[in-house]
Amino acid sequence: MAPEIYVCVTCRRAGEPDIEPRPGVLLAEATERAAAGTEVIVRRLKCLANCTRGPSVALRCNGSWTYLFGGLDPADAGALIDGARLLAGARDGILPWLGRPDVLKRGLIARVPPIGFTESDL
Amino acid sequence: MAPEIYVCVTCRRAGEPDIEPRPGVLLAEATERAAAGTEVIVRRLKCLANCTRGPSVALRCNGSWTYLFGGLDPADAGALIDGARLLAGARDGILPWLGRPDVLKRGLIARVPPIGFTESDL
Repeated sequence: MAPEIYVCVTCRRAGEPDIEPRPGVLLAEATERAAAGTEVIVRRLKCLANCTRGPSVALRCNGSWTYLFGGLDPADAGALIDGARLLAGARDGILPWLGRPDVLKRGLIARVPPIGFTESDL
Repeated sequence: MAPEIYVCVTCRRAGEPDIEPRPGVLLAEATERAAAGTEVIVRRLKCLANCTRGPSVALRCNGSWTYLFGGLDPADAGALIDGARLLAGARDGILPWLGRPDVLKRGLIARVPPIGFTESDL
């Protein structure tokens, strides 16, 4: 499975008035542009429930953990694509810290294990 | 697939000193006790990267969205089991708001879509 980035198009910036197009839509457009010509798939969806820390995306690929990022900006679209390709190349399904774009460090909201995951040493 | 609750056993409370057993371990123990005799599977893992708002769990079942909750306490274990069973009965894979235990409303951190999800009206 190619890496997928789900972009929440309903995201606003916390504490800011509602404007159109929403910041989430602008992020989706920028991410779609940045993904053009790559193997990364960008999908729009309506809510990742990270409303207090948007704009938000979820990132995953085949058998990987799923990563949630927040506080994003259209200028971060290239970093999202870089992160998606980094995850796609990670054999353990974990997004490496080394080489990870800074915005995917400071913007990390949470991560979710792949289906069927069991911790090996617990 | 039976509903699964992943409990992060490395969670501490933000701003509190490190104590043993960690609050995440106490939550895992309470959740395992509350799940006894139900179909709910409780799995321990090491980090959901929700470190600023722990203790944390992830909840999902077959084909459902995955829900992340934070700020939890061992006293919330019963609510987690109730929520897991509510999700297991949701045909659309979405945890209903109506009837959802309060702690799974105020403690919601984020949600991620099932594998292969596409928004139907975007």
